[in-house]
Amino acid sequence: MARKNAFYGQSGGVTAVINASACGVIETARRHPDQIGKVYAGQDGILGALTEDLFDTSVESEADIAALKHTPGAAFGSCRYKLGSIDKQRVQYERLIEVFRAHDIGYFFYNGGGDSQDTSLKVSQISSALGEPIVCVGIPKTMDNDLAITDCSPGFGSVAKYAATSLREAAFDVAAMSRTSTKVFLMEVMGRNAGWTTIACALAAEKEGDAPHILLLPEVAFEEGRFLAKVTETLARYGHCVIAASEGVKGKDGEFLSAGSEDAFGHAQLGGVVPVLANMIRAKLGFKCHWALPDYLLRSARHIASATDVDQAFAVGRAAVEFAVAGKNAVMPAIRRLSDTPYRWDIIEAPLSEVANREKLLPPEYITADGFGVTEAARRYLAPLILGEAYPPTKNGLPDYVRLRRVLAPKKLENTFAVTV
Amino acid sequence: MARKNAFYGQSGGVTAVINASACGVIETARRHPDQIGKVYAGQDGILGALTEDLFDTSVESEADIAALKHTPGAAFGSCRYKLGSIDKQRVQYERLIEVFRAHDIGYFFYNGGGDSQDTSLKVSQISSALGEPIVCVGIPKTMDNDLAITDCSPGFGSVAKYAATSLREAAFDVAAMSRTSTKVFLMEVMGRNAGWTTIACALAAEKEGDAPHILLLPEVAFEEGRFLAKVTETLARYGHCVIAASEGVKGKDGEFLSAGSEDAFGHAQLGGVVPVLANMIRAKLGFKCHWALPDYLLRSARHIASATDVDQAFAVGRAAVEFAVAGKNAVMPAIRRLSDTPYRWDIIEAPLSEVANREKLLPPEYITADGFGVTEAARRYLAPLILGEAYPPTKNGLPDYVRLRRVLAPKKLENTFAVTV
Repeated sequence: MARKNAFYGQSGGVTAVINASACGVIETARRHPDQIGKVYAGQDGILGALTEDLFDTSVESEADIAALKHTPGAAFGSCRYKLGSIDKQRVQYERLIEVFRAHDIGYFFYNGGGDSQDTSLKVSQISSALGEPIVCVGIPKTMDNDLAITDCSPGFGSVAKYAATSLREAAFDVAAMSRTSTKVFLMEVMGRNAGWTTIACALAAEKEGDAPHILLLPEVAFEEGRFLAKVTETLARYGHCVIAASEGVKGKDGEFLSAGSEDAFGHAQLGGVVPVLANMIRAKLGFKCHWALPDYLLRSARHIASATDVDQAFAVGRAAVEFAVAGKNAVMPAIRRLSDTPYRWDIIEAPLSEVANREKLLPPEYITADGFGVTEAARRYLAPLILGEAYPPTKNGLPDYVRLRRVLAPKKLENTFAVTV
Repeated sequence: MARKNAFYGQSGGVTAVINASACGVIETARRHPDQIGKVYAGQDGILGALTEDLFDTSVESEADIAALKHTPGAAFGSCRYKLGSIDKQRVQYERLIEVFRAHDIGYFFYNGGGDSQDTSLKVSQISSALGEPIVCVGIPKTMDNDLAITDCSPGFGSVAKYAATSLREAAFDVAAMSRTSTKVFLMEVMGRNAGWTTIACALAAEKEGDAPHILLLPEVAFEEGRFLAKVTETLARYGHCVIAASEGVKGKDGEFLSAGSEDAFGHAQLGGVVPVLANMIRAKLGFKCHWALPDYLLRSARHIASATDVDQAFAVGRAAVEFAVAGKNAVMPAIRRLSDTPYRWDIIEAPLSEVANREKLLPPEYITADGFGVTEAARRYLAPLILGEAYPPTKNGLPDYVRLRRVLAPKKLENTFAVTV
């Protein structure tokens, strides 16, 4: 293929390491000047492609691009915006092709979860159908760890490390004071449909009796009686009880436990299954509870990212470009596990058609029979993903994160395109 | 003074660095074998002294004692238990003296906040009155930073570093997605009566426009109209709005804003001013909000402790022993600031009578005129306290915190003593 420019977009909920993938893409593209001209990054992902708001990454210094590897957020902006089917949204896809043609873009890299892989697949299909084939390579990213084929999703390892570290620390606090203060501590983690992040909390425990004592997973129907009995039993045995709960805990009726919660104004609470559980424990058992809901702190905690996760995020960005210049199309670099101990992995090609819109669920064999804990198989899976420290540089005692120049390329099209967000 | 044993107790809400003070006490005591025999640590602070549950720290290895410097929680247990006045609770004080006599304890080190300094003072007074003077030295500790005389309180610097780091990271996340997702993010921090922890969040900002955009302090009466106007103005200017709120935010009527919040069962919410604020913004302005409530994660986050804070926590523990062996009584080592830039400090003696039961409030000149921000004076004060990294060692990708052997000394008294907790 003749030298072409590339489009790179960041999509969906951001992670602590999605910018490491951006770094992998841009650094690798710069090493292939014969095939790749400029890398244009969409402002707010695919939205920037539709509105022709494209950051010219060639103005960014090597040092700043390298610093993406340790910077959380999404340096070019991300979006929650799903392109519809080609039939219904044909005008959007045609607009994308129009913008890509105007900027001589022949490569499309889209960095996100299952929906984003679907977008990449569709761009590949429509560009072929329109006779201007674009090489489309997806790049995996999701803290939810629910992407198919890939052994893990970049973003998850750092969330797991944060969750396990935070829970271990809070448990030291609670254990030290439970005689006269808080007896039960609850931490809520993200992950509405799958308990990957919740099971990661179990890594905090080194031996029998260590926190967390109870996991509440979206995969296991919540039963108040069994839960309260487990809390009571834990308190009798250890004097304190530490619980990790998924935001997606549901009752037997399939209703989210957090859904019934209202504030004093009668408004539904925004999130928050742990306040509901804390009030339940207090009302039914009479114990003092505290709860934490780290929310975005969980997924943006670059200061305690997993070095393994950072390496993998960078590697999938690099591999995406290498796949593209090798002429591979409609694929996604996926992480393949070669061994647990020592942990070894490599990168393989996953067809986008097998990744798009699929969801990797938590294997039932990862959950203990009582539904409140994880098995050794789960620990074996999780353990390598949090290995290694990748502390960011600091300035004045705080992480020194980069802000790029973010210079938009001059527009080439006269017509604008309205998107409704 | 002839060689005597020492009592060491941890009191009140724990911090990420109170064990660094324990390390300072025990290591320094071991260097004065002519004056100090064993260091007995109370199980759960003063409660252990009353019930004669004393850990014999001489059985702990040097390596384990050194590891206290990087371990959060309270290695010997802490308590929320205030001894009353000597008049009303004379029996408790006499019991303390009885236990100390039985174990040949001539030194009393109590590690806590203002209440704990009061306990140390009273033990000093009663022991003199009973003719068996015990050398009493308080050791400062509180994440609330509200101790008198000392320029800062060990525990606060690490909380400040955690709060500013977390808020900076979450703000990168929010800024990256605000076009199609969350517009307003709120983080709640501890500190019911004083806004020290809240103003520390301001360190996340490096320049005009950086998050946090709004601070809500317990010192400034909350007015809904002014607050919502500030949120609206911030969104218009920056496209997103990041808010740090103290758990102790109060209205003009002096009522805690969180107090009116109830869950679906009609129970008062445990904590949580940010859900109330998020619902207010959503209902009145219609913007999508997310909120984080790190709770104990904030005060136990040893993984991102301030090296300055760790050094100071260790130094006050060491100084306490040095004061005691020099015959100083009824004092507390306090941190004195010698210069802001470069930051220099030393340790001075503060009389317990001037520290006990006092509270250091946030100086009004630290708060901007509109009440939503901090002044340069506040930044000058705060900036040095978060300097330096003191990462704990890791094992399997997680902080490797020590658990001591915690061997109780054989009891010497026949009578037991009941405490109601």
